[in-house]
Amino acid sequence: MTASVSEPVSGPASPGGVDPAWLPPEVFRPLGSRRTLILGEGPLVDTVYGEVADACARFGGRVVRGSSVSGGPYDLVLAPAEGGDRDTLGSEGFVLVRAGGVTRVTAAGQAGLLYGLFQLVRLGEAAFRGVQARETHRPALALRMLDHWDNVAVHPVMGQVERGYAGGSLFWRDGLARGSRDELARVRSYGRLLAACGVNAVAVNNVNVHTAEAHLLTDRVGEVAAIADTLRPYGIRTHLSVSFASPVVLGGLPTADPLHTAVSDWWAETTGRVYAAIPDFGGYVVKADSEGRPGPFTYGRSHTDGANMLAGALAPYGGTVHWRAFVYDHRQDWRDRSTDRARAAYDHFAPLDGEFAPNAVLQVKHGPLDFQPREPVSPVLGAMPNTRLAVEFQATQEYTGQQRHVCWLGPMWSGTLRFRPGGEGRPSIGELVRGGGLVAVSNAGDDPFWTGHPLAQANLYAVGRLAWRPDADPRAILDEWAELTFVPGESADPARLRDGLRAVLGGSWRTYEKYTAPLGVGFMVRPGHHYGPSADGYEYSPWGTYHFADRDGVGVDRSRATGTGFAGQYAKPWAEVYESADTCPDELLLFFHHVPYGHVLHSGDTVIQHIYDTHFDGVEEAEKARAVWAGLTGLVAPARHARVAERYEEQVRDAREWRDHINTYFFRKSGVPDARGRRIH
Amino acid sequence: MTASVSEPVSGPASPGGVDPAWLPPEVFRPLGSRRTLILGEGPLVDTVYGEVADACARFGGRVVRGSSVSGGPYDLVLAPAEGGDRDTLGSEGFVLVRAGGVTRVTAAGQAGLLYGLFQLVRLGEAAFRGVQARETHRPALALRMLDHWDNVAVHPVMGQVERGYAGGSLFWRDGLARGSRDELARVRSYGRLLAACGVNAVAVNNVNVHTAEAHLLTDRVGEVAAIADTLRPYGIRTHLSVSFASPVVLGGLPTADPLHTAVSDWWAETTGRVYAAIPDFGGYVVKADSEGRPGPFTYGRSHTDGANMLAGALAPYGGTVHWRAFVYDHRQDWRDRSTDRARAAYDHFAPLDGEFAPNAVLQVKHGPLDFQPREPVSPVLGAMPNTRLAVEFQATQEYTGQQRHVCWLGPMWSGTLRFRPGGEGRPSIGELVRGGGLVAVSNAGDDPFWTGHPLAQANLYAVGRLAWRPDADPRAILDEWAELTFVPGESADPARLRDGLRAVLGGSWRTYEKYTAPLGVGFMVRPGHHYGPSADGYEYSPWGTYHFADRDGVGVDRSRATGTGFAGQYAKPWAEVYESADTCPDELLLFFHHVPYGHVLHSGDTVIQHIYDTHFDGVEEAEKARAVWAGLTGLVAPARHARVAERYEEQVRDAREWRDHINTYFFRKSGVPDARGRRIH
Repeated sequence: MTASVSEPVSGPASPGGVDPAWLPPEVFRPLGSRRTLILGEGPLVDTVYGEVADACARFGGRVVRGSSVSGGPYDLVLAPAEGGDRDTLGSEGFVLVRAGGVTRVTAAGQAGLLYGLFQLVRLGEAAFRGVQARETHRPALALRMLDHWDNVAVHPVMGQVERGYAGGSLFWRDGLARGSRDELARVRSYGRLLAACGVNAVAVNNVNVHTAEAHLLTDRVGEVAAIADTLRPYGIRTHLSVSFASPVVLGGLPTADPLHTAVSDWWAETTGRVYAAIPDFGGYVVKADSEGRPGPFTYGRSHTDGANMLAGALAPYGGTVHWRAFVYDHRQDWRDRSTDRARAAYDHFAPLDGEFAPNAVLQVKHGPLDFQPREPVSPVLGAMPNTRLAVEFQATQEYTGQQRHVCWLGPMWSGTLRFRPGGEGRPSIGELVRGGGLVAVSNAGDDPFWTGHPLAQANLYAVGRLAWRPDADPRAILDEWAELTFVPGESADPARLRDGLRAVLGGSWRTYEKYTAPLGVGFMVRPGHHYGPSADGYEYSPWGTYHFADRDGVGVDRSRATGTGFAGQYAKPWAEVYESADTCPDELLLFFHHVPYGHVLHSGDTVIQHIYDTHFDGVEEAEKARAVWAGLTGLVAPARHARVAERYEEQVRDAREWRDHINTYFFRKSGVPDARGRRIH
Repeated sequence: MTASVSEPVSGPASPGGVDPAWLPPEVFRPLGSRRTLILGEGPLVDTVYGEVADACARFGGRVVRGSSVSGGPYDLVLAPAEGGDRDTLGSEGFVLVRAGGVTRVTAAGQAGLLYGLFQLVRLGEAAFRGVQARETHRPALALRMLDHWDNVAVHPVMGQVERGYAGGSLFWRDGLARGSRDELARVRSYGRLLAACGVNAVAVNNVNVHTAEAHLLTDRVGEVAAIADTLRPYGIRTHLSVSFASPVVLGGLPTADPLHTAVSDWWAETTGRVYAAIPDFGGYVVKADSEGRPGPFTYGRSHTDGANMLAGALAPYGGTVHWRAFVYDHRQDWRDRSTDRARAAYDHFAPLDGEFAPNAVLQVKHGPLDFQPREPVSPVLGAMPNTRLAVEFQATQEYTGQQRHVCWLGPMWSGTLRFRPGGEGRPSIGELVRGGGLVAVSNAGDDPFWTGHPLAQANLYAVGRLAWRPDADPRAILDEWAELTFVPGESADPARLRDGLRAVLGGSWRTYEKYTAPLGVGFMVRPGHHYGPSADGYEYSPWGTYHFADRDGVGVDRSRATGTGFAGQYAKPWAEVYESADTCPDELLLFFHHVPYGHVLHSGDTVIQHIYDTHFDGVEEAEKARAVWAGLTGLVAPARHARVAERYEEQVRDAREWRDHINTYFFRKSGVPDARGRRIH
């Protein structure tokens, strides 16, 4: 056997000054203080070895690498799977078992071994105690992806990262790829964090592909390859957002018509060169015919024409095209009540079910509009059984407080994944997206805390964990994240810290919802940057997002009987549930119905009183959370505590602004005083 | 005598491709086809000579320059004044007389001769016909100034020219001074146009002085000197906007406290160096303690402390400090109804009357807010009899259609200048600002038509003419501008052209007012860029500009009895007129009063019906103006016609957007249907 004894190595820990997030060194203590044998070969096994060796160097354990079990004794063996497991585990699954004082992780693929390692990290000491019956772990979704809306060249309006609230891009700075030793170390650390929560794919540039970004596909592909090289050791494949007009913009062709041979030839050749540079390249992400982006409509072609042509170029190499379903008329006339933006994705895509190529994934935002704090689940996700669907979440908090507000999105995402478009007994969204996967817009940047708001790390963590297991309990994910991130060693009173974190994060999404737009009506944000309240901000705009509030009532009639018919895009039972204001869930009432202010909710409150109550309550909850956080001083590292405390000041200020703006707006419209006599300005 | 016969010279006409505005070559034909003698010496006499010589070269006349009247005969003599005129005409006045077939212009100063020349241009053939009794022309206001809100470095939000709608800056481009031969020729052309309408001062940079601009005062003063050298031949003095924090920013001092000797010494020395570079430098323009600009408040000092310190630095050289009265709290809390932005300038400055240095001018926006299409006249202008006051207009159409809408501002400005704060028999604003002058924010840029919209040239022209004669009839100014700009030779049917221009321009301000914010309430514009409607755009903002519309009524109660007390800042009779909704003029009703939608105006209409009617009417008027303009095809140079026609498309589109937004907004609030049954969305 070949064996090498652990030596102190330069650790894979985060570069200096950067928060270790959910991988602080301490969580490696159980592993690093034991005797480990690692079997198998390959680059990801090298990564596993490096992780264990580093932990051993820090905590006094010992790691041996070999080709068969010999020597010992060992507390832990990480090894290739044997027998039937080799056929059933897939490349990413692993088996965990403990018997006879030895913990054993086996995997059919190298990635499985890596994921098994991070499972041990999560288990901590428990992984090395007693007996553990054989457990098989396999990701429910093969694609667990983060899309970065990072621009290469700083955009004059959107900046370095579109809708980014965590500093600059991890990959790009002022038009150039980040390439210094420290910068690449940071990218590697990012990949490590992602692997530790289960993410296995990253798209490295904004879906809005501007001039500089377009060139990543051709003459600048080397920069993408450098990122791919850096992320690959953590089992992450790199994807690229491309412009549908690339053959024109980059190739000098007169057209980008997907049915034109010169165009498909150009894509085939170009894609070949991409794979020459990045052999495990993941594929293309495409925002076509959306918000001004080019697409097949320009040439009178369909979305399947466009997607399948790109799929054809990628197929020989095992790549995938991720075609976004975010297509709607963003130059709508607000006077035209017959057009409903919510209908658009279904109207465009549902008729195409079954027509997409096998390596095309249709990437669908979780709601019919655009990442509002409360939307119904997109009807597209239930209407295309013969298409590989991915659900798209937004970890970056564009509409949920921009990482200045605490807003733990696990419960919202979990609710979407558990939703069953066909009703009880029929598949959930989590099951329906098995073919396509789960994609989230990343909330990470070059901020020292990765996500601007330290507590927003929980959302990034949850992306991977929910993609691995869509039916996971978000409360368990939150606890798991908290236990890793706020390691026991950090805190003098772990129980109080855990309770505090649950208190400030657990209900934070509902709190945010309470003090912002009421009852699912959405989009009462300031135009452009989308932060802070503006009740009429999008009311007379071309973006198709209205609430129609007048002196008598508010909400959008999307029923079949009298409205836009959107409710009819759902199958039973939801089509019926949403059709009537009597059965529609309170939290979605104004999304589906225009009702008088005096309409009585299932809760027993009138709409107007509900608006007042939730807005007063929401602010009180934010104030309470701030106080709870203040009470955790001394239990949390000072820098992290200070950053969160500072953001709470802004959150409470902005929450009050929301409360007063929305309450005043509706009081002025309705003339109905608050039943509890509180001050409305 | 010394005499030189005219030779063809390279003309002072506009550089290639640039519209000649109100100085097309043809208007020099009467002058250029005659025999002229020019007496006197000096650089401005050289300019006069150059103008006449160029005209003669073009139209076959003859010009002789000498030191006494000899030779001849002459049709025209331009000569220094003699006798008592020398004492009474001032440096800019002139006498015009025609007798014995000779037209004679005499002036005590060189500038007077230049203005006399342009008076002859305006008169055309009439200047050389029959007998003309002696006419004395003197400017009513000594300071007739344009402020350029031009940035040196392109501002990330505001661009090259803040609130500029006519392309880039004439003076700066991408951080550098324009200095090519063509660019300086363009600046010279600009100076020539300004001289021809009577402007004699220009501030060359934005009142918001950012980093690059601050350096114009010190190490970059040479660039200002180059502009001054270029404008000087047309009698224009150059001014500079400076940062009150210059001693800190540029001088490295720890403070800019105006009462600190090191600070005043720094300003004295710096100012000395400015005058070494620009001997006729006009002075400083200062926006202090306003919208985030630094000012004396930082050091617990008053505005007179600040202004008078700068005045002291300028006094030895004959310079003036222009201190802007645009001081208010732009971080107001909309919930706080006790604070009224309209009150701010008066509250800040009226108590300081009599305390400003003799060479300090307080520059006051014409209304109490910010250049809205309809505001009452600022009470400051009637409250500081012992202060040199200048009134500030905004030629650049920030709130009046951004040079995409036709909006002839002559009537609005004239109305302000004729307003008598003390009532009938008391001085008008035009009289009250004799000590300070008239300042307008320029609407000119490097656009080929100077002002983006060719018809906006009329506003630029009117600035000079109203500053020269504040009681001039704006209709006469408009005709005068039109006759120069659309020279008879250009048009096959001059009468129809004149009627057409009167039709499209004459009432255009009232038309614009009709389809935008109603009854003086103001500020229903989209935040930030200020173009297009947003009824609630500033309603919950820190900028202090609200309308308080609710389901019952609209408007701001600024009465003494029940409101903010702003009406009490006026003297009688206006304090009383504005105090009561019964006597307040309709067009200012919502500026001064919050009234129910059913309130009956003096016109007999209810407020709500007035809103509907004016919005429908305003759009119809814009549509009619567009049709009138279309009918002028063939009477106007094609390029100019096309540019205006294209802008009318946008104006009509945006006017309809205004109509529908405002009408829908108030219909939703009030629930009152249109009495005439027109469609409200």
